[in-house]
Amino acid sequence: MSLSKPGPMSLVPFVSVENMMRIVVERGVERTLVELADYIEEDFRRWPQFDKTPRIAAHSPDGVIELMPTSDGRSYGFKYVNGHPKNVRSGRQTVTAFGVLSDVDTGYPVLLTEMTILTALRTAATSALVAKYLAPKGAKVMAMIGNGAQSEFQCLAFKAICGIDTVRLFDIDVKATEKAVRNLQGKGLNVVACKSGEEAMEGAQIITTCTADKQFATILSDNMVGPGVHINAIGGDCPGKTELHRDILLRSDIFVEYPEQTRIEGEIQQLPEDHPVTEIWQVMTGVAAGRTSDKQITLFDSVGFATEDFSALRYLNAVLKEHQGQQMLDMLADPDDPRDLFGMIERYGKAAEAL
Amino acid sequence: MSLSKPGPMSLVPFVSVENMMRIVVERGVERTLVELADYIEEDFRRWPQFDKTPRIAAHSPDGVIELMPTSDGRSYGFKYVNGHPKNVRSGRQTVTAFGVLSDVDTGYPVLLTEMTILTALRTAATSALVAKYLAPKGAKVMAMIGNGAQSEFQCLAFKAICGIDTVRLFDIDVKATEKAVRNLQGKGLNVVACKSGEEAMEGAQIITTCTADKQFATILSDNMVGPGVHINAIGGDCPGKTELHRDILLRSDIFVEYPEQTRIEGEIQQLPEDHPVTEIWQVMTGVAAGRTSDKQITLFDSVGFATEDFSALRYLNAVLKEHQGQQMLDMLADPDDPRDLFGMIERYGKAAEAL
Repeated sequence: MSLSKPGPMSLVPFVSVENMMRIVVERGVERTLVELADYIEEDFRRWPQFDKTPRIAAHSPDGVIELMPTSDGRSYGFKYVNGHPKNVRSGRQTVTAFGVLSDVDTGYPVLLTEMTILTALRTAATSALVAKYLAPKGAKVMAMIGNGAQSEFQCLAFKAICGIDTVRLFDIDVKATEKAVRNLQGKGLNVVACKSGEEAMEGAQIITTCTADKQFATILSDNMVGPGVHINAIGGDCPGKTELHRDILLRSDIFVEYPEQTRIEGEIQQLPEDHPVTEIWQVMTGVAAGRTSDKQITLFDSVGFATEDFSALRYLNAVLKEHQGQQMLDMLADPDDPRDLFGMIERYGKAAEAL
Repeated sequence: MSLSKPGPMSLVPFVSVENMMRIVVERGVERTLVELADYIEEDFRRWPQFDKTPRIAAHSPDGVIELMPTSDGRSYGFKYVNGHPKNVRSGRQTVTAFGVLSDVDTGYPVLLTEMTILTALRTAATSALVAKYLAPKGAKVMAMIGNGAQSEFQCLAFKAICGIDTVRLFDIDVKATEKAVRNLQGKGLNVVACKSGEEAMEGAQIITTCTADKQFATILSDNMVGPGVHINAIGGDCPGKTELHRDILLRSDIFVEYPEQTRIEGEIQQLPEDHPVTEIWQVMTGVAAGRTSDKQITLFDSVGFATEDFSALRYLNAVLKEHQGQQMLDMLADPDDPRDLFGMIERYGKAAEAL
């Protein structure tokens, strides 16, 4: 064993933040979103094949750290993700994430990746994918309430996947809106900065809410929402954190990812346990109806589910060979004899001494 | 933003396998085991402070992949670990692992590390620490049944922490025993290779079982175990995998880490749900009795618990500044404005174009 060369089975490819940015830039944001949505849809359509569990959350006064594992029996994936709204004050991200894809047969990781950027992409891709099934036909205008780190990804996903041509932006912090307007210049969208949620919703067939407060907040009140719209509610995603007034929920047909998790974390934590919801995979496979009338309010109560991260990991793993720059991490011990872990350390020590 | 320099908050220190070997070699295996045991004991003694949950297991025909999170409210740690007995056939480790330590206040990871070696160390340190409380006074001889990757660490931990001077080794694979004998030469232990489990147990006051079959196997039968011994049962650690005959359990006082997990995974899965067991943290804090007589058989039904990995991560993090060689991984997105994740990618693309 050489001192410098780890055994071949010890190496796990690592996609850094910079490498992820390079991949997204080389591929293009919209193309990445479209391809990612295809992977997510493919996995929703084989939903019964997945081992599913609500994410495992460790709550603290200022935030939450979560593990989101799932497996299709061949691959296993999990994401580590935090949610800390106050992080912005210290220059940190509210949400950061990383994830791992593994081979079920050996238990060996095959990919470690940053997932802060990848989560932003998969969340937007999922939203637009679901809207493809639920939004009114021919929808062209989206209100985007909350103009933080997720907002531009949402706007571009709805453009690329649903054919939206206009976004109407509102945030209680006007600087956030200005940032989003700037970032969306020249992207083929009409971008309208609005002074209130009401103004943002004028003429919108799709309403996306994505705010970060970790508390019950009413971003949408009942009188703001007219018939026939599709609401894509992203921000309510942990216990005690919601964005929509309860009366809107009662007027809507509600679609969710995984009810066991959404009842804990989503907008529907405001409703009784037995309030009817439709699982979105059933709409995608044709088992359940999606939108059935022009007057209906459809609501995607999105909290983010482990299969979406699994799809994202699977997608990244597939496109990786077209993009350079991954590091190989010496992460798994690979002794000559697998039972001789101790001897590996001893031999390393002797080789180091001999240098 | 430079193309090559990630922001300061994006970097997470990574301890590779090679770096871990260097740390263990520089510090010495026995010293590392002793120090690690102190950290593990410290955390067992403040057991009520921890968020505890049975590990989240994804089982497949050939093995299991598990996530083991815990938190003391200030730090959060988790380990990813697999168990695949057949891996040995393809030159892989039965058990590989990596782990992360995070800051609860921000949710940001502060350390990523290989944990295959670290798990071997913490498992041995935990075994010997528990035996310090339960083994008969003045025990000098240990039988070591199962001479795989964990065995040498066990032998040295019992030497360094409990004062054992003789180990009697047995494995159904004589090559495994030969390897362990070789590795333990010159370590200050009398090492005796034995041809059967019975022979290994002659004169032993401590019996350690650590085999890897993923099935109900009887490594120890009832007539092999005399009064007064301490049994350290490591190998039975997932549903359907046990090592001891049920009758031994019925003659023993049983000590466990976290009953909720041990009832699923440990030797006691052979017993009724309400069979009395003692939590080892209660022995360490003096709340419950440990060994009370010379005739008593004490059994540590060890499956490995998340707090032990937390202690190991905390220990590693503390000693890291004394040892060089960690890589800094660009793992967390760190845009100039935390809400401007999209802009960070765009600016990266423009900078790359300009090159």
